[in-house]
Amino acid sequence: MIRSPIVVALLGGIIALSSFSVTAQEITRNKTPGSDFPIAQSVQVPGASELIFVSGAVPKPIVEGGDPNDSTTYGDTEVQTVSVLTEVQSRLQRLGLDMGDVVMMRAYLVGTPETEDRMDFSGFMRGYTQFFGTEEQPHLPSRSAFQIAGLARAGWFVEIEVVAARAP
Amino acid sequence: MIRSPIVVALLGGIIALSSFSVTAQEITRNKTPGSDFPIAQSVQVPGASELIFVSGAVPKPIVEGGDPNDSTTYGDTEVQTVSVLTEVQSRLQRLGLDMGDVVMMRAYLVGTPETEDRMDFSGFMRGYTQFFGTEEQPHLPSRSAFQIAGLARAGWFVEIEVVAARAP
Amino acid sequence: MIRSPIVVALLGGIIALSSFSVTAQEITRNKTPGSDFPIAQSVQVPGASELIFVSGAVPKPIVEGGDPNDSTTYGDTEVQTVSVLTEVQSRLQRLGLDMGDVVMMRAYLVGTPETEDRMDFSGFMRGYTQFFGTEEQPHLPSRSAFQIAGLARAGWFVEIEVVAARAP
Repeated sequence: MIRSPIVVALLGGIIALSSFSVTAQEITRNKTPGSDFPIAQSVQVPGASELIFVSGAVPKPIVEGGDPNDSTTYGDTEVQTVSVLTEVQSRLQRLGLDMGDVVMMRAYLVGTPETEDRMDFSGFMRGYTQFFGTEEQPHLPSRSAFQIAGLARAGWFVEIEVVAARAP
Repeated sequence: MIRSPIVVALLGGIIALSSFSVTAQEITRNKTPGSDFPIAQSVQVPGASELIFVSGAVPKPIVEGGDPNDSTTYGDTEVQTVSVLTEVQSRLQRLGLDMGDVVMMRAYLVGTPETEDRMDFSGFMRGYTQFFGTEEQPHLPSRSAFQIAGLARAGWFVEIEVVAARAP
Repeated sequence: MIRSPIVVALLGGIIALSSFSVTAQEITRNKTPGSDFPIAQSVQVPGASELIFVSGAVPKPIVEGGDPNDSTTYGDTEVQTVSVLTEVQSRLQRLGLDMGDVVMMRAYLVGTPETEDRMDFSGFMRGYTQFFGTEEQPHLPSRSAFQIAGLARAGWFVEIEVVAARAP
């Protein structure tokens, strides 16, 4: 039996500390073996991390007073991607986070006339790679990207939502 | 050095309590600055929260014995949205949760003939606002909503999935 | 007042232990009442679980040197689903996890000519049920599945992303 109050006290401390050490881990981003494609194959978020769910963001107009249902009001897929990711970044920065804290991204793309009504995946990638996998910001998220049938405004080609995480 | 067993004991308690205070935080819902649109721009879920992933829910028939591939069996987008969200609510209530615990929603909408084969976004919003941003239930989730190409049954216009969270 | 160091010490230990017992829970998969459909209605992930976000996986070619924009290079929806889920499984196994640890799945399906340009939902289910709800692997995830407008390559019919969890 435990006889000493010091032993009991130490036990309490040890249990508390070990519980702490279990949770104080880092986010791990696993590469795709043999591939340079700039997304993670999977991202491990340690227990006790804060999770931040960010609403799908949409592009801002580049033409004042333009028709919201005309894509020229928002630009092509690359321009719209940069607009949307700039907005995502500003939402994260408001919370003391940045693009390097994104663990999962979902990109919903609309077909464009210039790409025969298929999504402009190359244009999307040209925008994406300005924010992820750069020298200043090498952290890559997991990601799904695909073509949807439409967004709330006919002029929009891009909606992007992210989950960010802050390790304990 | 620590000499007294009381000090050691208190240390154990303090470490345990501070660990508790780190995790005992609340879910924070951040508004979009300068906008009244009834979704959160982002939702922060504190570490150590329970997360509840709810499967995409689909509408229930409003006509008994109706053709499952005919939308009149399920109603228009507003009616289907209310049906789906009622089902989501009942799933959450079974777990001691409610719509105010939803932190992320994804709404997958199908184009309708009445809206020229585009999604009926206004109809969806009329259904959504009966559950979110009301006087009785002011908590807003983050959200993505977009038009998809189709659901498992041709009569369905609406599938909605949510993530809910229970703070520690 | 608390007079004994033993009492104080025990309090420290009890607080630490109770905090531990709160987090040391299991993942709970809730069935849909009255339904045999092999997905969970909801999955509860206890606080302090590690979360693993896996990127959307796509099919591997079954024909060497085939046209990446021709679906015969990748097979029908069932074949593609098995290819994608095998890849998901291998990603999880690399992290010491398996299909039984998936808590949420999103399946993005493209319409096929054989199913009149609607998604081949039955083919998808024939692939899915080889990995989920079997005797060896009975754990079911929550799931959303729907038809999208397209994937990065015209020959792909299936993209699947999952969230897995490791309880503390």
